[in-house]
Amino acid sequence: MEDLKRDLTHRFVADSVSRTLELVGERWTLLILREAFFGVRRYAQLARNLGIPRPTLSGRLRTLVDAGLLERVPYGAGPAHHEYRLTRAGIDLFASIVTLMRWGDEHLAGAHGPPIVLRHNECGKVADPYLACRSCGGEIDARNVTPERGAGFIDGAAVTGR
Amino acid sequence: MEDLKRDLTHRFVADSVSRTLELVGERWTLLILREAFFGVRRYAQLARNLGIPRPTLSGRLRTLVDAGLLERVPYGAGPAHHEYRLTRAGIDLFASIVTLMRWGDEHLAGAHGPPIVLRHNECGKVADPYLACRSCGGEIDARNVTPERGAGFIDGAAVTGR
Repeated sequence: MEDLKRDLTHRFVADSVSRTLELVGERWTLLILREAFFGVRRYAQLARNLGIPRPTLSGRLRTLVDAGLLERVPYGAGPAHHEYRLTRAGIDLFASIVTLMRWGDEHLAGAHGPPIVLRHNECGKVADPYLACRSCGGEIDARNVTPERGAGFIDGAAVTGR
Repeated sequence: MEDLKRDLTHRFVADSVSRTLELVGERWTLLILREAFFGVRRYAQLARNLGIPRPTLSGRLRTLVDAGLLERVPYGAGPAHHEYRLTRAGIDLFASIVTLMRWGDEHLAGAHGPPIVLRHNECGKVADPYLACRSCGGEIDARNVTPERGAGFIDGAAVTGR
Protein backbone atom coordinates (compact mmCIF):
# COMPACT_ATOMS: atom_id res chain seq x y z
CA MET A 1 0.00 0.00 0.00
CA GLU A 2 2.80 2.36 0.96
CA ASP A 3 4.40 1.52 -2.39
CA LEU A 4 1.26 2.29 -4.34
CA LYS A 5 0.89 5.61 -2.54
CA ARG A 6 4.45 6.51 -3.47
CA ASP A 7 4.05 5.30 -7.03
CA LEU A 8 1.02 7.50 -7.51
CA THR A 9 2.85 10.57 -6.36
CA HIS A 10 5.95 9.65 -8.36
CA ARG A 11 4.23 9.44 -11.62
CA PHE A 12 1.61 12.07 -11.67
CA VAL A 13 2.13 15.52 -10.32
CA ALA A 14 -0.12 17.82 -12.30
CA ASP A 15 -3.21 16.80 -10.41
CA SER A 16 -6.12 18.88 -9.34
CA VAL A 17 -4.48 20.43 -6.31
CA SER A 18 -1.72 22.12 -8.26
CA ARG A 19 -4.17 23.26 -10.90
CA THR A 20 -6.43 24.67 -8.22
CA LEU A 21 -3.56 26.40 -6.50
CA GLU A 22 -2.47 28.08 -9.68
CA LEU A 23 -5.79 29.86 -9.51
CA VAL A 24 -6.53 30.43 -5.87
CA GLY A 25 -3.23 29.95 -4.05
CA GLU A 26 -2.52 33.64 -4.09
CA ARG A 27 -3.40 35.25 -0.78
CA TRP A 28 -5.23 38.35 -2.04
CA THR A 29 -7.29 36.27 -4.45
CA LEU A 30 -8.59 34.05 -1.69
CA LEU A 31 -9.25 37.02 0.63
CA ILE A 32 -11.32 38.67 -2.12
CA LEU A 33 -13.30 35.45 -2.45
CA ARG A 34 -13.87 35.31 1.29
CA GLU A 35 -15.28 38.86 1.16
CA ALA A 36 -17.54 37.76 -1.69
CA PHE A 37 -18.90 34.91 0.48
CA PHE A 38 -19.69 37.43 3.20
CA GLY A 39 -21.78 39.47 0.75
CA VAL A 40 -19.29 42.11 -0.38
CA ARG A 41 -19.73 42.83 -4.09
CA ARG A 42 -18.43 46.31 -4.77
CA TYR A 43 -14.97 47.55 -5.63
CA ALA A 44 -14.79 50.38 -3.08
CA GLN A 45 -15.94 48.12 -0.29
CA LEU A 46 -13.41 45.43 -1.17
CA ALA A 47 -10.65 48.04 -1.23
CA ARG A 48 -11.69 49.37 2.18
CA ASN A 49 -12.22 46.00 3.87
CA LEU A 50 -8.97 44.45 2.75
CA GLY A 51 -6.67 47.46 2.80
CA ILE A 52 -5.48 46.25 -0.59
CA PRO A 53 -3.68 48.63 -3.00
CA ARG A 54 -6.07 49.51 -5.82
CA PRO A 55 -3.86 48.36 -8.71
CA THR A 56 -3.54 44.99 -6.94
CA LEU A 57 -7.29 44.79 -6.38
CA SER A 58 -8.03 45.62 -10.02
CA GLY A 59 -5.57 42.98 -11.20
CA ARG A 60 -6.92 40.28 -8.89
CA LEU A 61 -10.53 41.02 -9.82
CA ARG A 62 -9.62 40.71 -13.49
CA THR A 63 -7.91 37.37 -12.80
CA LEU A 64 -10.94 36.13 -10.86
CA VAL A 65 -13.33 37.16 -13.64
CA ASP A 66 -11.08 35.60 -16.31
CA ALA A 67 -10.89 32.41 -14.24
CA GLY A 68 -14.68 32.23 -14.05
CA LEU A 69 -14.90 32.60 -10.27
CA LEU A 70 -16.50 36.06 -10.27
CA GLU A 71 -18.66 37.79 -12.84
CA ARG A 72 -18.83 41.53 -13.36
CA VAL A 73 -22.45 42.62 -13.68
CA PRO A 74 -24.01 46.09 -14.02
CA TYR A 75 -26.28 47.32 -11.26
CA GLY A 76 -28.50 50.36 -10.77
CA ALA A 77 -29.10 53.05 -13.33
CA GLY A 78 -25.66 54.47 -14.05
CA PRO A 79 -23.59 52.84 -16.79
CA ALA A 80 -20.45 53.07 -14.63
CA HIS A 81 -21.78 50.86 -11.81
CA HIS A 82 -20.73 47.24 -11.65
CA GLU A 83 -20.56 44.65 -8.97
CA TYR A 84 -18.70 41.35 -8.67
CA ARG A 85 -20.77 38.23 -8.05
CA LEU A 86 -19.64 34.69 -7.36
CA THR A 87 -20.19 32.18 -10.16
CA ARG A 88 -21.01 28.50 -9.54
CA ALA A 89 -17.27 27.66 -9.50
CA GLY A 90 -16.68 30.51 -7.05
CA ILE A 91 -19.48 29.35 -4.76
CA ASP A 92 -18.03 25.83 -4.84
CA LEU A 93 -14.81 27.12 -3.25
CA PHE A 94 -16.72 27.74 -0.04
CA ALA A 95 -15.76 24.42 1.57
CA SER A 96 -12.05 25.12 0.97
CA ILE A 97 -12.29 28.57 2.50
CA VAL A 98 -14.21 27.30 5.52
CA THR A 99 -11.71 24.51 6.19
CA LEU A 100 -8.82 26.99 5.93
CA MET A 101 -10.62 29.31 8.38
CA ARG A 102 -11.21 26.46 10.82
CA TRP A 103 -7.59 25.38 10.64
CA GLY A 104 -6.52 28.95 11.36
CA ASP A 105 -8.93 29.08 14.30
CA GLU A 106 -7.45 25.89 15.70
CA HIS A 107 -3.78 26.53 15.14
CA LEU A 108 -3.25 30.26 14.72
CA ALA A 109 -6.05 32.25 16.32
CA GLY A 110 -4.48 32.31 19.76
CA ALA A 111 -6.03 32.50 23.21
CA HIS A 112 -8.91 34.78 22.24
CA GLY A 113 -10.48 32.20 19.96
CA PRO A 114 -11.90 32.54 16.46
CA PRO A 115 -12.56 36.09 15.23
CA ILE A 116 -15.45 34.96 13.06
CA VAL A 117 -17.72 31.97 13.48
CA LEU A 118 -20.36 30.57 11.14
CA ARG A 119 -23.85 29.85 12.44
CA HIS A 120 -25.55 26.96 10.62
CA ASN A 121 -29.00 28.26 9.70
CA GLU A 122 -30.49 24.75 9.55
CA CYS A 123 -29.90 23.90 13.22
CA GLY A 124 -29.09 27.32 14.70
CA LYS A 125 -25.79 26.17 16.20
CA VAL A 126 -22.34 27.66 15.65
CA ALA A 127 -20.94 25.31 13.05
CA ASP A 128 -18.09 22.94 13.81
CA PRO A 129 -17.70 21.67 10.25
CA TYR A 130 -15.97 18.41 9.36
CA LEU A 131 -15.41 16.45 6.21
CA ALA A 132 -17.97 13.65 5.79
CA CYS A 133 -18.27 10.76 3.32
CA ARG A 134 -21.41 10.96 1.20
CA SER A 135 -21.62 7.15 1.06
CA CYS A 136 -21.48 6.26 4.75
CA GLY A 137 -21.71 9.61 6.54
CA GLY A 138 -18.53 8.87 8.51
CA GLU A 139 -15.75 11.39 8.99
CA ILE A 140 -12.95 11.56 6.43
CA ASP A 141 -9.47 12.27 7.74
CA ALA A 142 -5.84 11.87 6.75
CA ARG A 143 -5.63 8.41 8.27
CA ASN A 144 -8.71 6.68 6.88
CA VAL A 145 -8.48 7.23 3.15
CA THR A 146 -6.25 5.64 0.52
CA PRO A 147 -5.29 7.57 -2.63
CA GLU A 148 -5.91 5.71 -5.93
CA ARG A 149 -5.62 6.47 -9.60
CA GLY A 150 -8.73 8.15 -10.93
CA ALA A 151 -10.07 8.19 -14.49
CA GLY A 152 -7.90 11.22 -15.29
CA PHE A 153 -4.67 9.63 -14.11
CA ILE A 154 -1.96 9.99 -16.74
CA ASP A 155 0.30 6.98 -17.04
CA GLY A 156 3.98 7.32 -17.81
CA ALA A 157 6.71 9.67 -16.74
CA ALA A 158 6.09 12.53 -14.35
CA VAL A 159 3.92 15.20 -15.88
CA THR A 160 4.48 18.42 -14.08
CA GLY A 161 2.01 20.64 -15.87
CA ARG A 162 4.48 23.46 -15.69
CA MET B 1 -28.42 40.61 8.23
CA GLU B 2 -26.73 41.91 5.11
CA ASP B 3 -25.63 44.92 7.16
CA LEU B 4 -24.16 42.78 9.92
CA LYS B 5 -22.27 40.69 7.37
CA ARG B 6 -20.79 43.83 5.85
CA ASP B 7 -20.00 45.34 9.22
CA LEU B 8 -18.09 42.23 10.25
CA THR B 9 -15.94 42.30 7.18
CA HIS B 10 -15.47 46.06 7.40
CA ARG B 11 -14.04 46.01 10.81
CA PHE B 12 -11.98 42.94 11.11
CA VAL B 13 -9.70 41.76 8.38
CA ALA B 14 -6.83 39.92 10.05
CA ASP B 15 -8.91 36.83 10.68
CA SER B 16 -7.90 33.25 10.52
CA VAL B 17 -8.06 32.88 6.76
CA SER B 18 -5.43 35.49 6.07
CA ARG B 19 -3.23 34.13 8.83
CA THR B 20 -3.57 30.64 7.42
CA LEU B 21 -2.83 31.83 3.92
CA GLU B 22 0.32 33.55 5.00
CA LEU B 23 1.55 30.08 5.87
CA VAL B 24 0.07 27.75 3.30
CA GLY B 25 -1.08 29.97 0.45
CA GLU B 26 2.15 29.44 -1.39
CA ARG B 27 1.76 26.80 -4.08
CA TRP B 28 4.94 24.77 -3.45
CA THR B 29 4.27 24.69 0.26
CA LEU B 30 0.86 23.13 -0.21
CA LEU B 31 2.17 20.66 -2.82
CA ILE B 32 4.85 19.52 -0.37
CA LEU B 33 2.14 19.00 2.25
CA ARG B 34 0.06 16.99 -0.21
CA GLU B 35 3.06 14.71 -0.83
CA ALA B 36 3.46 14.32 2.92
CA PHE B 37 -0.19 13.17 3.18
CA PHE B 38 0.51 10.56 0.53
CA GLY B 39 3.38 9.16 2.58
CA VAL B 40 6.39 10.93 1.05
CA ARG B 41 8.88 11.87 3.76
CA ARG B 42 12.30 12.18 2.14
CA TYR B 43 14.02 15.08 0.49
CA ALA B 44 15.13 13.28 -2.69
CA GLN B 45 11.68 11.83 -3.24
CA LEU B 46 10.00 15.21 -2.78
CA ALA B 47 12.43 16.77 -5.25
CA ARG B 48 11.74 14.04 -7.82
CA ASN B 49 7.96 13.94 -7.41
CA LEU B 50 7.42 17.66 -7.61
CA GLY B 51 10.10 18.65 -10.09
CA ILE B 52 10.88 21.48 -7.67
CA PRO B 53 14.28 23.24 -7.78
CA ARG B 54 16.36 22.11 -4.80
CA PRO B 55 17.00 25.56 -3.30
CA THR B 56 13.24 26.17 -3.42
CA LEU B 57 12.53 22.80 -1.80
CA SER B 58 15.08 23.43 0.97
CA GLY B 59 13.59 26.84 1.66
CA ARG B 60 10.00 25.59 1.75
CA LEU B 61 10.88 22.67 4.02
CA ARG B 62 12.57 25.08 6.41
CA THR B 63 9.48 27.30 6.39
CA LEU B 64 7.22 24.30 7.02
CA VAL B 65 9.39 23.10 9.92
CA ASP B 66 9.57 26.63 11.39
CA ALA B 67 5.81 26.93 11.08
CA GLY B 68 5.31 23.68 12.97
CA LEU B 69 3.65 21.80 10.10
CA LEU B 70 6.48 19.34 9.50
CA GLU B 71 9.16 18.02 11.83
CA ARG B 72 12.61 16.92 10.76
CA VAL B 73 13.49 13.63 12.42
CA PRO B 74 16.51 11.34 12.07
CA TYR B 75 16.01 7.84 10.69
CA GLY B 76 18.23 4.81 10.17
CA ALA B 77 21.82 4.55 11.26
CA GLY B 78 23.61 7.37 9.45
CA PRO B 79 23.74 10.78 11.10
CA ALA B 80 23.01 12.46 7.77
CA HIS B 81 19.60 10.82 7.28
CA HIS B 82 16.50 12.78 8.12
CA GLU B 83 12.92 12.62 7.09
CA TYR B 84 10.06 15.11 7.27
CA ARG B 85 6.94 14.08 9.16
CA LEU B 86 3.63 15.88 9.52
CA THR B 87 2.90 17.37 12.92
CA ARG B 88 -0.61 17.59 14.40
CA ALA B 89 -1.11 21.02 12.78
CA GLY B 90 0.09 19.59 9.46
CA ILE B 91 -2.27 16.63 9.68
CA ASP B 92 -5.14 19.01 10.45
CA LEU B 93 -4.64 20.68 7.06
CA PHE B 94 -5.91 17.53 5.39
CA ALA B 95 -9.50 18.74 5.07
CA SER B 96 -8.35 21.92 3.30
CA ILE B 97 -6.22 19.99 0.85
CA VAL B 98 -9.00 17.50 0.12
CA THR B 99 -11.56 20.25 -0.51
CA LEU B 100 -9.12 22.03 -2.85
CA MET B 101 -8.54 18.73 -4.71
CA ARG B 102 -12.26 18.12 -5.04
CA TRP B 103 -12.84 21.62 -6.35
CA GLY B 104 -10.10 21.09 -8.91
CA ASP B 105 -11.69 17.79 -9.92
CA GLU B 106 -15.03 19.49 -10.41
CA HIS B 107 -13.95 22.65 -12.16
CA LEU B 108 -10.51 22.08 -13.67
CA ALA B 109 -9.83 18.39 -14.24
CA GLY B 110 -11.50 18.29 -17.65
CA ALA B 111 -13.20 15.46 -19.51
CA HIS B 112 -10.95 12.68 -18.22
CA GLY B 113 -12.08 13.11 -14.63
CA PRO B 114 -10.06 13.25 -11.43
CA PRO B 115 -6.42 12.08 -11.63
CA ILE B 116 -6.45 10.88 -8.03
CA VAL B 117 -9.39 9.72 -5.94
CA LEU B 118 -9.54 8.88 -2.25
CA ARG B 119 -11.06 5.59 -1.11
CA HIS B 120 -12.69 5.81 2.32
CA ASN B 121 -11.35 2.83 4.25
CA GLU B 122 -14.36 2.74 6.60
CA CYS B 123 -16.94 2.00 3.88
CA GLY B 124 -14.74 0.99 0.94
CA LYS B 125 -16.28 3.56 -1.41
CA VAL B 126 -14.50 6.24 -3.39
CA ALA B 127 -15.05 9.26 -1.19
CA ASP B 128 -17.28 12.13 -2.27
CA PRO B 129 -16.48 14.35 0.72
CA TYR B 130 -18.69 17.22 1.83
CA LEU B 131 -18.69 19.64 4.72
CA ALA B 132 -21.03 18.52 7.51
CA CYS B 133 -22.23 20.21 10.72
CA ARG B 134 -21.18 18.35 13.85
CA SER B 135 -24.35 19.44 15.65
CA CYS B 136 -27.01 18.32 13.17
CA GLY B 137 -25.11 16.30 10.56
CA GLY B 138 -26.55 18.44 7.74
CA GLU B 139 -24.47 19.81 4.90
CA ILE B 140 -22.81 23.21 5.31
CA ASP B 141 -22.65 25.40 2.23
CA ALA B 142 -22.23 29.04 1.25
CA ARG B 143 -25.96 29.69 1.43
CA ASN B 144 -26.91 28.18 4.79
CA VAL B 145 -24.49 29.77 7.24
CA THR B 146 -24.33 33.26 8.71
CA PRO B 147 -20.99 34.78 9.79
CA GLU B 148 -20.91 36.20 13.33
CA ARG B 149 -18.34 37.74 15.61
CA GLY B 150 -16.42 35.10 17.51
CA ALA B 151 -14.61 35.41 20.85
CA GLY B 152 -11.47 36.61 19.08
CA PHE B 153 -13.22 39.39 17.19
CA ILE B 154 -11.36 42.67 17.60
CA ASP B 155 -13.58 45.71 17.87
CA GLY B 156 -12.60 49.04 16.39
CA ALA B 157 -11.04 50.17 13.18
CA ALA B 158 -9.91 47.72 10.54
CA VAL B 159 -6.96 45.66 11.71
CA THR B 160 -5.12 44.37 8.74
CA GLY B 161 -2.47 42.30 10.46
CA ARG B 162 0.03 43.42 7.87
